[in-house]
Amino acid sequence: MNFFYRLGQRIAGANSILCVGLDPDTAKLPLGVSMVEFNHAIIAATQAYVCAYKLNFAFYEAAGMAGWEVLEETIKGIPSDIPIIADAKRADIGNTSRAYAQSVFETLEVDAVTVSPYLGYDGVAPFLEYHDRGVFIICRTSNPGAADFQALSVASEGRIVPLYEVVAEKAVQWNEHGNIGLVLGATGAMELGTIRHKFPDLPFLVPGVGEQGGDPALVVRDGQGLRAEGLIINASRQVIFASSGSDFAKAAAQTARALRDEINGYRKIIAN
Amino acid sequence: MNFFYRLGQRIAGANSILCVGLDPDTAKLPLGVSMVEFNHAIIAATQAYVCAYKLNFAFYEAAGMAGWEVLEETIKGIPSDIPIIADAKRADIGNTSRAYAQSVFETLEVDAVTVSPYLGYDGVAPFLEYHDRGVFIICRTSNPGAADFQALSVASEGRIVPLYEVVAEKAVQWNEHGNIGLVLGATGAMELGTIRHKFPDLPFLVPGVGEQGGDPALVVRDGQGLRAEGLIINASRQVIFASSGSDFAKAAAQTARALRDEINGYRKIIAN
Repeated sequence: MNFFYRLGQRIAGANSILCVGLDPDTAKLPLGVSMVEFNHAIIAATQAYVCAYKLNFAFYEAAGMAGWEVLEETIKGIPSDIPIIADAKRADIGNTSRAYAQSVFETLEVDAVTVSPYLGYDGVAPFLEYHDRGVFIICRTSNPGAADFQALSVASEGRIVPLYEVVAEKAVQWNEHGNIGLVLGATGAMELGTIRHKFPDLPFLVPGVGEQGGDPALVVRDGQGLRAEGLIINASRQVIFASSGSDFAKAAAQTARALRDEINGYRKIIAN
Repeated sequence: MNFFYRLGQRIAGANSILCVGLDPDTAKLPLGVSMVEFNHAIIAATQAYVCAYKLNFAFYEAAGMAGWEVLEETIKGIPSDIPIIADAKRADIGNTSRAYAQSVFETLEVDAVTVSPYLGYDGVAPFLEYHDRGVFIICRTSNPGAADFQALSVASEGRIVPLYEVVAEKAVQWNEHGNIGLVLGATGAMELGTIRHKFPDLPFLVPGVGEQGGDPALVVRDGQGLRAEGLIINASRQVIFASSGSDFAKAAAQTARALRDEINGYRKIIAN
């Protein structure tokens, strides 16, 4: 079954477009709590309020093989009706991307992945071959460095457009199985609005609210499209590190619930 | 000690600019040989002929946590005077890239890493903070998809140049610790020559000879710069899968030796 269809079902069921990032930065874990205990507690506390979980691989890989064990344990501990997004930002030449796709979709069995566009079509294609999984292509990120290359003016088919817009256009051309979405940072509301205007049907994963300063009201205003699963908003640190004390799970639940409700206050509920 | 200095020492000592890619694709391993046995045998057989080993993480991650164990075991099994390049093509926003840098440089303790430029400076900076390690920025890759974005014409500081050239220029600007190199594919000899002409001092890691069709003679002619450590050429499948039988290690050694000698026939030996 198509990933975005399943995501839409979950969004309707949980009445939430909030994705929570499970990024267990060891420098920020509450005292005496292991990465896997932390994740399981956060999942138990927040699952009612989320449409998906996003796992940023960097925070697992920092611990090497032990971190990959936590990654696998965390994935197993997420209820099966909640889609899991591997925020791995992978891509390489074709035969190598095939191995990365096998890693996330077969070995880890996640529902969706983020991929880097820089290597072009054959770097992304092996992921797209999994028709029932989602592939979010990095388009315009939420960090200052987004200006270095993504925002450059590019000559493409007789027009001058920013590079991230060419990435979005290519993503649409490559989307023959309806399994592509884009990653667009919340801190670039103008860019988000431009891409949404051009592609009202394309699903967006938007990180960068909370610690990074993106405004949920603007993200919903500029990012919501025509589909129920057209926009999901990710918050990581703001939710999972809401408290550094022993009440961390309760604080995460309260923050997730409040953020979900705040976002719902801005968005139009779209029937599937 | 600076990574490129150490690489130069090894190049002189082994009289080789050949880097061998340890990419143990499970579909191609000889019957009954495990990934870790395969790697250890390849290392034992080829070490005299290489200036470095490059490990493409995709082929390890395909096996999940077990693959990361092989990654760690393989790294431990490489003699300490041979630099190890983690071909991981990572990068994310700043605080996340910091975790990736910790993973490769502290947990795995490799000597160098490949990173993706698409997120810009703050995605690369956390890697650069390790002054004694090398950071190869993906510039122009060897695959067909390189044409999709890397080759686009970009307006930058009043000129029109291909995107990959802007990446190279930024890399030079960011190189205050002398720990940056570029990844340039062997299949784009013209692009390699253009970038070499502009940046005679910048170290290049060039994959794409062998299976991908790049010509070592052209790579050396167009890619060799002014420094002993200015050019290293990677071959993976051509060497490690030279034979699929029980003589795989011997065949890999013969191929590595022949390729090193062929490359040496084209290159000028530069004293350090």
